[in-house]
Amino acid sequence: MRNTVPVEVSARHVHLSQEQIDILFGKGHQLTPLKMLSQPGQFLSEERVTIVGPKKTMERVGVLGPARKEGQVELSLTDCFSIGIKDAPVRESGVIDGTPGVILKTDLAEIQLDKGVIVAKRHIHMTTADAAEFGVQDKDVVSVEVKCGDRAITFGDVVVRVNDTYALAMHIDTDEANAGCISGDVTGVVIK
Amino acid sequence: MRNTVPVEVSARHVHLSQEQIDILFGKGHQLTPLKMLSQPGQFLSEERVTIVGPKKTMERVGVLGPARKEGQVELSLTDCFSIGIKDAPVRESGVIDGTPGVILKTDLAEIQLDKGVIVAKRHIHMTTADAAEFGVQDKDVVSVEVKCGDRAITFGDVVVRVNDTYALAMHIDTDEANAGCISGDVTGVVIK
Repeated sequence: MRNTVPVEVSARHVHLSQEQIDILFGKGHQLTPLKMLSQPGQFLSEERVTIVGPKKTMERVGVLGPARKEGQVELSLTDCFSIGIKDAPVRESGVIDGTPGVILKTDLAEIQLDKGVIVAKRHIHMTTADAAEFGVQDKDVVSVEVKCGDRAITFGDVVVRVNDTYALAMHIDTDEANAGCISGDVTGVVIK
Repeated sequence: MRNTVPVEVSARHVHLSQEQIDILFGKGHQLTPLKMLSQPGQFLSEERVTIVGPKKTMERVGVLGPARKEGQVELSLTDCFSIGIKDAPVRESGVIDGTPGVILKTDLAEIQLDKGVIVAKRHIHMTTADAAEFGVQDKDVVSVEVKCGDRAITFGDVVVRVNDTYALAMHIDTDEANAGCISGDVTGVVIK
């Protein structure tokens, strides 16, 4: 049975709806792919936004494409404390009801999101075939052990997300990466 | 056998020698305790310094007292990336040979440390009596499991430091705390 996954670190980023892209970058603007990500079709765009928090501003934050149904701002807890957002919950992507809002700004415009700031819940993307090999199912919660550098770490509360459009990868944020000295090509061991 | 420890989060901070205090705050200046810390005799002082990194400046960083033999700057890896220090190692406090330097600044003066920037190695302070109860010895390396919030986590590579001047506490930095949603009164389970 397979039990190892590549571990990828997600830096703070923003997802936008087409309507938000229209406002922030101009009517009909399309995000320009700068770098394809591991998940098929997903990309880091050339576009950048400024996040205006209650306490501080964070400039040149990456926008991921393609456009989504709703805007979403994924920050680390360190980011949240730094810019003054106190109540951002740990959530799966797309589950943003009741989350705090924030202001996004470009040279062209500024919009107030009334929700959407989350700290991403750590997760593993995999296909149905991967899930069978790992002996897990969609929404299962597992642990993943990562040993690299001087900070061996085991992440609990890792959600498995199964979809045939995915590619096998665990996603963690920068706080989680730094707590484990994780950078570059790193592999984790799934513990059920 | 005992196996639980209180887990405390150390924010970024600076230790200074008396000579450095003299330069940064005036000849003969004594650090003023603002808040006593869990380790007997140790305190957060009222004094603050600015850390000038290659990329960015970090203001109002806390100075811990009393004065030490050598200056030391304890940052999280997130802090290091943010201010542009690329090669700060994970080290035990006081082990600063070969570590990067940085500029410290106050309204009065500025000094260039030629070494001293570290990312603190996670550790547990305990007395000889505690060590006997836990069945561990000075310099042992253990794991500590912390379950709170939505991010259960097990920290490996935790160094046990035994000294009868210590009080029982595990110390982690803000990256490690955020990776585990750890804040407030939290207890960890020691795994040998």
